[in-house]
Amino acid sequence: MNNFRFCSPTEFIFGKNTICKVAQLVKQYGGSKVLIHYGNKSAKKSGLLTQIENCFQNEFIEYVKLGGVQPNPIDELVYKGIELGRKEKVNFILAIGGGSVIDSAKAIAAGILYNGDFWNFFEGIVTINHALPIATVLTLPAAGSEGSPNTVITKTDGMLKRGIGSSFIRPVFSIMDPVLTFTLPTCQTVYGIADMMAHVMERYFTQTQGVDITDRMCESILLSIIHSAKTLIREPENYDARANIMWASTIAHNGICGVGREEDWATHALEHELSALYNIAHGAGLAVMFPAWMQYVYTAGIDRFVQFATRVWNIENIGSKKEIALKGIHALKDFFSSIKLPINFEQLGAQKSDIDKLIDTLKINTKGKLGNFLLLDMNDARAIYEIAAKR
Amino acid sequence: MNNFRFCSPTEFIFGKNTICKVAQLVKQYGGSKVLIHYGNKSAKKSGLLTQIENCFQNEFIEYVKLGGVQPNPIDELVYKGIELGRKEKVNFILAIGGGSVIDSAKAIAAGILYNGDFWNFFEGIVTINHALPIATVLTLPAAGSEGSPNTVITKTDGMLKRGIGSSFIRPVFSIMDPVLTFTLPTCQTVYGIADMMAHVMERYFTQTQGVDITDRMCESILLSIIHSAKTLIREPENYDARANIMWASTIAHNGICGVGREEDWATHALEHELSALYNIAHGAGLAVMFPAWMQYVYTAGIDRFVQFATRVWNIENIGSKKEIALKGIHALKDFFSSIKLPINFEQLGAQKSDIDKLIDTLKINTKGKLGNFLLLDMNDARAIYEIAAKR
Repeated sequence: MNNFRFCSPTEFIFGKNTICKVAQLVKQYGGSKVLIHYGNKSAKKSGLLTQIENCFQNEFIEYVKLGGVQPNPIDELVYKGIELGRKEKVNFILAIGGGSVIDSAKAIAAGILYNGDFWNFFEGIVTINHALPIATVLTLPAAGSEGSPNTVITKTDGMLKRGIGSSFIRPVFSIMDPVLTFTLPTCQTVYGIADMMAHVMERYFTQTQGVDITDRMCESILLSIIHSAKTLIREPENYDARANIMWASTIAHNGICGVGREEDWATHALEHELSALYNIAHGAGLAVMFPAWMQYVYTAGIDRFVQFATRVWNIENIGSKKEIALKGIHALKDFFSSIKLPINFEQLGAQKSDIDKLIDTLKINTKGKLGNFLLLDMNDARAIYEIAAKR
Repeated sequence: MNNFRFCSPTEFIFGKNTICKVAQLVKQYGGSKVLIHYGNKSAKKSGLLTQIENCFQNEFIEYVKLGGVQPNPIDELVYKGIELGRKEKVNFILAIGGGSVIDSAKAIAAGILYNGDFWNFFEGIVTINHALPIATVLTLPAAGSEGSPNTVITKTDGMLKRGIGSSFIRPVFSIMDPVLTFTLPTCQTVYGIADMMAHVMERYFTQTQGVDITDRMCESILLSIIHSAKTLIREPENYDARANIMWASTIAHNGICGVGREEDWATHALEHELSALYNIAHGAGLAVMFPAWMQYVYTAGIDRFVQFATRVWNIENIGSKKEIALKGIHALKDFFSSIKLPINFEQLGAQKSDIDKLIDTLKINTKGKLGNFLLLDMNDARAIYEIAAKR
């Protein structure tokens, strides 16, 4: 086991009828003028935005609103949010939505207190050393941004999709009511499932030895996600399945699954180029890229793939290690297919002929190297995209 | 799944050669004059105390020391610590040791800022609403007090052993170096293992339905503890096994295993009377009482006991539920025996003839009712003690 630091201070308020606590919590964490940040239709249409505005009005909390966050949030709206937040002298950011809204809110929270261009954080020119407090009302379990120190923003000029992390932008609290997710379209539900499974698997596939407890924890979360996903496909309003999935998204990415080990994150990097180029859902891209990455790298640490196959997919420990490992990878692919996730470029709407473009931006964003389980260069990345492009 | 709040803000600094970070961390968390609280022999003998004193001297941090904490920490030393801390105007408490030292430090940290008798907290007369910051250097993985909001103190007058919890007494940071545990005697290692397994199982055995993710997480931690325990019996200086056990003790009791469900805690209450009466190790008492409690209650929720047997102990799902459940309970007992834990009163050094005494104090401490999986009265408690008294 490697040395580690772990600190996950976010307060989670989880369950039915928890939205009403938002105003009291904002006050408790020092907010008196709030920038409410949200997406487009659903927060308004569902009445959630109005409900939260009423809570604030009843408690005499001032607020301004900025909607319009799209999947794969972009720098332009972050600049707008920074300008609005400064002009209105807000001292608290509340994100209502999923990972895209929360990530955009995090960039705004750091950017408001920084005198230069916020994109400098994403270029690695400066590090975040303070930010306004951020909180979330989660409506889409997927990215785990409600409990993570991470944010991913796309710069439209050049379509550069970049991620950073800082403890200053970890939410102070997150309200999580699974009932809010009852009406999610199936595609959003399953994209979220692919995203959270990928967050666990990026940590699970490691060369670090002797980390049994983190291995077991990763496996337990995957098993639980698989179980609940199968239920949700049949019964989208099953509360317990929605609740298990919602909590899984958080602990998949608050860091607890990665303690004591090297993590990988190659698949996330490979995927970011796809969602930047095609503006597709991150989770959809991950469902295609993860099995492709696995197929390319599994021989570099076959025992871990055998463990994955036997413990997560209940594959019998019979035959060669290679056979067992491949059965595990196929089981993951079959599972993704069974819950209507894409598993190749065609199903994703990506083109094999675009691989050169993908490699071009990947090279810029990764400086030509990525991954940890197996260190990949651009030839490896090309080979993995080619696997993903097969039907 | 039930509604829940979860917040675990302690910063964990885990691994080899992490002790040296203590002075910097104390400063970071606002400490300038520290009360160092510790046990008796080992912190001195191992050189750990001197090492930490040197770190403080090098960073010009003032400190006073109070040693002498015994297993099952008592009110008298807490009064001493409160008096010393006030006299010396300390603003930070550092516990060096295991659960007993940390629990004593927590009571001191709350007591220093409270004008009345600190025992009022344990009588439920007042609640803690502030405390000095506490940090720990953990030397004995067992109680999970390094990441929990709980403390258990025994009032010697009447031998009343009581536990309370408050977010104000959760450690701000905990330094955890598994190498410090290499020299633990086998008995202390295995008592710790029983304690942390009990912390998971008090949460696992619930009547709450639809909490698959927490079930799976509990099972994963139990599996990992069992695996590492078997290694440690053979190889007490196996770093990875020590590290897995140390981290297990923390997450077994920081609350993550209990989210979304009713917990039980009857076994802890039953055990506290044993360790208060005989001054035995809490973990030893738990190893005796947990299987006895299980044997008494398992028919009240047999499916959960079947799940425990099949998922944790790999018992084949063949035969009646009752048979499978009992096989699981026996597997736990056999495991405890295999790592040299006591499994009955005789091995523990307890007397069947003392059951009346145990019931007398239990009745006072629990107001006559305990547990949640099955609500127990004093007749039930007597029956469970009688099961534990069988050879």
